[in-house]
Amino acid sequence: MRTIKLKKNEDRRIRAGHLWIFSNEIANLEQDFAPGETVDIITHGDAYVGRGYINPHSLISVRLLTRDKEQIDVDFYAKRIRQALLLRQRIFPGEETYRVVFGEADGLPGLVIDKYADTLVLQVSTLGMHTRLAEILAALPRAGLTARTVVLRADTPMSELEGFSGENRLLDGELDSPVKIEQDGLSFLVDVMQGQKTGFYLDQRDNRRSACGLLAGMRVLDCFCYTGAWSVYAARAGARQVIGIDSSAGAIEMAGRNTALNSLESVCSFQTADVFERLDELVQKEEKFDCVILDPPALVKNKRLLKQGEAAYEKINHLAMKLIQPGGLLMSCSCSYHISRENFAQILSAAARKARRSPVVIEWRGQARDHPTLLSMPETAYLKCAIIRIL
Amino acid sequence: MRTIKLKKNEDRRIRAGHLWIFSNEIANLEQDFAPGETVDIITHGDAYVGRGYINPHSLISVRLLTRDKEQIDVDFYAKRIRQALLLRQRIFPGEETYRVVFGEADGLPGLVIDKYADTLVLQVSTLGMHTRLAEILAALPRAGLTARTVVLRADTPMSELEGFSGENRLLDGELDSPVKIEQDGLSFLVDVMQGQKTGFYLDQRDNRRSACGLLAGMRVLDCFCYTGAWSVYAARAGARQVIGIDSSAGAIEMAGRNTALNSLESVCSFQTADVFERLDELVQKEEKFDCVILDPPALVKNKRLLKQGEAAYEKINHLAMKLIQPGGLLMSCSCSYHISRENFAQILSAAARKARRSPVVIEWRGQARDHPTLLSMPETAYLKCAIIRIL
Repeated sequence: MRTIKLKKNEDRRIRAGHLWIFSNEIANLEQDFAPGETVDIITHGDAYVGRGYINPHSLISVRLLTRDKEQIDVDFYAKRIRQALLLRQRIFPGEETYRVVFGEADGLPGLVIDKYADTLVLQVSTLGMHTRLAEILAALPRAGLTARTVVLRADTPMSELEGFSGENRLLDGELDSPVKIEQDGLSFLVDVMQGQKTGFYLDQRDNRRSACGLLAGMRVLDCFCYTGAWSVYAARAGARQVIGIDSSAGAIEMAGRNTALNSLESVCSFQTADVFERLDELVQKEEKFDCVILDPPALVKNKRLLKQGEAAYEKINHLAMKLIQPGGLLMSCSCSYHISRENFAQILSAAARKARRSPVVIEWRGQARDHPTLLSMPETAYLKCAIIRIL
Repeated sequence: MRTIKLKKNEDRRIRAGHLWIFSNEIANLEQDFAPGETVDIITHGDAYVGRGYINPHSLISVRLLTRDKEQIDVDFYAKRIRQALLLRQRIFPGEETYRVVFGEADGLPGLVIDKYADTLVLQVSTLGMHTRLAEILAALPRAGLTARTVVLRADTPMSELEGFSGENRLLDGELDSPVKIEQDGLSFLVDVMQGQKTGFYLDQRDNRRSACGLLAGMRVLDCFCYTGAWSVYAARAGARQVIGIDSSAGAIEMAGRNTALNSLESVCSFQTADVFERLDELVQKEEKFDCVILDPPALVKNKRLLKQGEAAYEKINHLAMKLIQPGGLLMSCSCSYHISRENFAQILSAAARKARRSPVVIEWRGQARDHPTLLSMPETAYLKCAIIRIL
């Protein structure tokens, strides 16, 4: 196995628990590695750091898989997946739908495995994991993770940069699309092959359950509603009326089907519209809601666009606050990991000043428990969800 | 009413939503104010900022009560308390025990009101609030907040600095001590007159409920257990064995009574001991637990003692991690507001390195929902609770 030597002092972040090695931290980076080759990592003083996979054409050159001197083979993947599965079985006993593997936090950088009832979705975001798909597939039954269907999602914006095919495909079994799942006694249809992320925002699950408990009797506006998960949870919790808005006609069609599946059509209705424009119109019409849910896609896609994204978050939050009755609620989310919780708090505070409203935070929440995080990799904790009373 | 003029540019933090004015931010601070006198606040350019109460002998000279030009009278307090009560009734419908007013976050700096079934505990931490007790008491029924008993807790370390009597006393009704409360179907005895804080750690309520759901079948060590609330929640959630440790013999005695009250004596046992020493002993004896709960009192009491407090947090977390079975859980809390979540994450990470363990954070939690926070006053968000899997 070839060895990667770090530059002097560049082992500190890694030793503190981080799993990424950047190209400029490596002393002997050559370009002739096989795509995703396994390498040993040593410090400048030749101390062993661990073992990982390399992509010399990526800014993140090496991702650490282990700090031990163990074989990276099917047994290794099975052990990691098994360990991850045991946690989910403790978190969600008896359930069938959850994220089994969340990349770095489960010791498998670049790999996500979502379980939607009897269908597994493998999402890869690195060349190294894409080249290891056969081993991962072989590891699944050994880890105790069996399924009727296995789907590959490779359509990440990273595929071109990393250098792997962004094609989604069926890896095993037959796909009945959409897949029907259950969460907290509610049913949803999931388009695992073409939907956003792996088809469903599993990361908001605990937030939906927890936040929607406050919505009994309320008139709710669900912005960026996608396939209607927040709306359905709100309606089931006793909201009087729920209006969902999303720019995707396909998502809105699915939201309607999800509402019908749970017999909540009398409460929920959906509109295909640009949320920014629609919020503006609603403010001008002086409409009022008891609660506005803002769960937008990442509005800061990369660091260069930070200022622009911050302004977008401020704008929608400012408009939403204007629509909320005194004493009503705002559920405001951000899944941009470039925006810290402190930064998001400042944005929300600025939005409130502009809207001349007083916000009181009832709870700060993060990702669902099947999306764990690493203390030493702030990148792994990306989701913020503030439950705010607007006076 | 007398007027306080801020120095140039010293209105920024206040306008951004903060409620405290420090003595060095005031242009015309004289020493002849009546204790807790109501004052108007204006900017250096004579723009109206709001109205608050003053203590010229305190570092925090003025605490803002309103940004409007309204009377600060019984009706004002009743309106604020009513608004706070409505939130708690939505958060905990049908319940009898919760924090009704949480100081700044409910627009009443220096005042906490805890409702323990039929007993109200008013906790004051400022001279201004201490001088207003008669009005607050008169406001309670107008706010819809009635009780058989009202108790004053004034025994804060701040009383001497602020200049009010630190004597606790019965303000109304008769006190049957301890008071019996119910939370989540569990019963607890609360010493409202002499217990820690107002007698019970209400701020951990949501964390206990949420975290203990993971403990079925586990052997649990509950450190700094006080009157046993975490222990009782853990036992009810199906923990196999729970051992609670606290340095206060009185707290341990009450923990035993609380366990008996919930018929969980066969699971829980308690020991009076110094937690630091006991953890050391358990490590030396190579004892193992499936879960360790660390809910210490604030180990950083003030900024000067930050380094020392950080070291204490690192030490107990390091020892606790050594006691945890691979794949087991650590519930690690800090209520020191001088320690940010980021700082606490670094401390936990350092503790894990020292213990040679890999921590994976399942969830970051904060205060219970009846302890809301202000976006622009980070001081109001003091509690951190990390649910961590220790590999």
